[in-house]
Amino acid sequence: MTNFENRIGVKSLLDKVVTADEAAKLISDGDVVGMSGFTRAGDAKVVPMALAERAKNEKFQIDVYTGASLGPEVDKYLAEAGVIRKRGPFQADAGIRNMINAGQVTYVDAHLSHNAELVRQGIIGPIKYAILEAVAITEDGMIVPTTSVGNSNIFAEYAENIIIELNISHPETLIGIHDIYTPAEQGKRGPIPMTNPEQRIGTIGIKVDPAKIKAIVISEEPDAPSMIVPPDEETQTMANILLDFFRDEIKAGRLTNELMPLQSGVGSVANAVLDGFADSEFENLVVASEVLQDAVFNLIDAGKVRFAAAASITLTKELQEKVYGNLENYADKICLRPQEISNHPELIRRLGLISINTALELDIYGNVNSTHVSGTKMMNGIGGSGDFARNARLGIFVTKSYAKGGAISSIVPMVSHVDHTEHDVDIIVTEQGLADLRGLAPKERAAAIIENCAHPDYKEQLWDYYNRAVEATGNAQTPHILSEALSWHVSLAENKTMKKELAK
Amino acid sequence: MTNFENRIGVKSLLDKVVTADEAAKLISDGDVVGMSGFTRAGDAKVVPMALAERAKNEKFQIDVYTGASLGPEVDKYLAEAGVIRKRGPFQADAGIRNMINAGQVTYVDAHLSHNAELVRQGIIGPIKYAILEAVAITEDGMIVPTTSVGNSNIFAEYAENIIIELNISHPETLIGIHDIYTPAEQGKRGPIPMTNPEQRIGTIGIKVDPAKIKAIVISEEPDAPSMIVPPDEETQTMANILLDFFRDEIKAGRLTNELMPLQSGVGSVANAVLDGFADSEFENLVVASEVLQDAVFNLIDAGKVRFAAAASITLTKELQEKVYGNLENYADKICLRPQEISNHPELIRRLGLISINTALELDIYGNVNSTHVSGTKMMNGIGGSGDFARNARLGIFVTKSYAKGGAISSIVPMVSHVDHTEHDVDIIVTEQGLADLRGLAPKERAAAIIENCAHPDYKEQLWDYYNRAVEATGNAQTPHILSEALSWHVSLAENKTMKKELAK
Repeated sequence: MTNFENRIGVKSLLDKVVTADEAAKLISDGDVVGMSGFTRAGDAKVVPMALAERAKNEKFQIDVYTGASLGPEVDKYLAEAGVIRKRGPFQADAGIRNMINAGQVTYVDAHLSHNAELVRQGIIGPIKYAILEAVAITEDGMIVPTTSVGNSNIFAEYAENIIIELNISHPETLIGIHDIYTPAEQGKRGPIPMTNPEQRIGTIGIKVDPAKIKAIVISEEPDAPSMIVPPDEETQTMANILLDFFRDEIKAGRLTNELMPLQSGVGSVANAVLDGFADSEFENLVVASEVLQDAVFNLIDAGKVRFAAAASITLTKELQEKVYGNLENYADKICLRPQEISNHPELIRRLGLISINTALELDIYGNVNSTHVSGTKMMNGIGGSGDFARNARLGIFVTKSYAKGGAISSIVPMVSHVDHTEHDVDIIVTEQGLADLRGLAPKERAAAIIENCAHPDYKEQLWDYYNRAVEATGNAQTPHILSEALSWHVSLAENKTMKKELAK
Repeated sequence: MTNFENRIGVKSLLDKVVTADEAAKLISDGDVVGMSGFTRAGDAKVVPMALAERAKNEKFQIDVYTGASLGPEVDKYLAEAGVIRKRGPFQADAGIRNMINAGQVTYVDAHLSHNAELVRQGIIGPIKYAILEAVAITEDGMIVPTTSVGNSNIFAEYAENIIIELNISHPETLIGIHDIYTPAEQGKRGPIPMTNPEQRIGTIGIKVDPAKIKAIVISEEPDAPSMIVPPDEETQTMANILLDFFRDEIKAGRLTNELMPLQSGVGSVANAVLDGFADSEFENLVVASEVLQDAVFNLIDAGKVRFAAAASITLTKELQEKVYGNLENYADKICLRPQEISNHPELIRRLGLISINTALELDIYGNVNSTHVSGTKMMNGIGGSGDFARNARLGIFVTKSYAKGGAISSIVPMVSHVDHTEHDVDIIVTEQGLADLRGLAPKERAAAIIENCAHPDYKEQLWDYYNRAVEATGNAQTPHILSEALSWHVSLAENKTMKKELAK
């Protein structure tokens, strides 16, 4: 093991360095544990693996709350070891997902900006242990996070005890990247003093009482690389459609060439759409997001993005090497904040973000399902999409118009689960086109969505449903035929397709 | 007509005084018009009536945006005269409601805090005329609103022209009640400088260029009184349940005796629940709401409420006389603000509001329908309920567990329309009991809601659906049987009851 002592500024804490197994023994059955980690970045790794190992000989369960999704150590190995009783607020691993959808793990998916308030109120908690990955502990006792901040600041503040995974595989050049600001209790707090994402309003680390740090485990495990797929022809088309929309907004005087701070959700489609800026005329862009994926660093390199702030950095293997090996080049261009800040409605509204998130399915009136396959099985979770879509200047949802080779239409009469209501969805983009729903009533929205965004294979079928619903309800505000509204999903389950003529 | 000149501080504007008919002639076919008015308070009255009169001899249509609901002048008479083409963001009048649900008026219901941003962006607009009720125009050219502020400030700022209804039936003691603060454009604005609802951050009136004021019409029409029904045994029970919950929260250390600023939605149930505080031990309460109904003034009189801020005051006839006849007694205890401020996510989150709103129906997982009867027919609109529920410290929804003498269960397997998702609903109260959903996963929520809140006549039927859904989905995250999820609504339409044994 390479030298780690210089990364522990509080020398009395050198006594706390233990093995992962020893640290794992501190956790007791029934504990509520807060862990670092957001979109597979900056998560605790070796202590969870030691916990999974310990579970081979001992039955115990814990509740695990994190920033957002983690790598496989927690959400695959620890989950499959049967250790996780309750999990929140986000996951994106097939291991724990299958257990969630079999009733083996209780999963509370929640708006990512809400967790900190729930911790303050004791709804999440009392937190017995926070297990936090750090790149260093400063001389004045601040924990410096690694590639994500997530909820680590609030976990550190409210946890009775803290275990640090000091990960020396992360470069020390991460020190100074973070901007840790934690609001006080509700009713006792002031405004968040930020009017521009480039401002620094906090500290470079998380201030804690060193006495709360009960163990420090040295780790060299890298973050699990992100698994986004590269842009394809259809996502490129979606990016082009969106860029044209921005150009039209500039012509209409509603945006300038610098646009507004950009937020782009987790995942391949949102990443691909951002990637589309690379060959555009747009410059001097600012990103204010919850996660910085590959595209953002490519845009920084291309001179398109001036500054990028988020709660985490999650990169593919290729970009990890490039970015973390040259972090000093990005140090004045990026910033990592707690997710309570990156996703805070106060800031999203004030700054006027352009928010781009992925829909699982959406309906003809613009309601969006982000989470539940056929209304019942959890995919990942709502994440920050609600924080952003509700408060953004432009709430944009992107999705391909179809899935499973055309057996599924992403646009349905009624979504099987609602995460974002008609009131929160401004713009929809598929590879077919764009629907601008701002200021439109439900029936106007239906026409725009079906005509501009639906796949040609489903357009007639959607119009047919809509027209019959208008007729059946006497042209009511939001026409539906309730006995038929979810029939496309039922048909999918029974006939493996939403296509009417094939289902017969 | 009594003396009005002393209420027009800019003397050059005395030339602009015209009749309502003359003012109404200024409006042209196709105009987008912004009108004052919020929950039947402070709305323009005589010019709309003159417009309705004019429509007898002339065909023209306009788009009408307001603060929220208006009295009958606009939403009954003007609507039924066929003048309203598009209407937003809220209404609550049977006249226009029937036209909306027959496709005769295009209705855009929206979060009440969102309108101002849409005006700034030009999505609503360009606004040709703002028609604003005022109690006075100050010497420095500020329009002083009457019993509501609503969107009047943003309409005044962005409208090309302004028509004032100077309503001399409103007491001049209203001057000084208002606190007008308007954020700058997104990206160029600072934090809203309020950390306590009792602070004043703005001006007593709306600053405008007097040259924009094209007409002043003198009016003596009082606000239409609110039509809330008095508390009954069941709403009293709901109030008691909620008070006991607050007591438990205090015991748990999550609230103090002063609670947190209270928001209570429009309508009889929410008013009745607030009324319940009158005989309680709670004191020194602060109200930070969108509307102040009778209960708030009764609580001020009873020494329970220290201060109350909102975007409007809407009272029954009895309370109107009492309050407006003695406004000087309330002047230092109340404050009216723009709805962008009363409903702003920044402030709701910062101040930690306790938010109480009414559900039309809700489902076993805690999704709430606030707007659409059987998913298709608009009732009123989402109003501010989304602004508050999403950002409040405690998002509480109240409803009786049944309607139509028991033919309808307010708790259904799946709501027919979603306005508030499972992520935004913390507490549900019916006359049967309270479900505390904070930190719970969907299946935990289902158990709490069915067991604590459902009407006994429907409990078994809900458990039956839920248990079969768990079975059918292999215990998935959110069990549903999609072919059956909306069958209760279908049964209601076909059999006039949701009760299974009666429907057979």
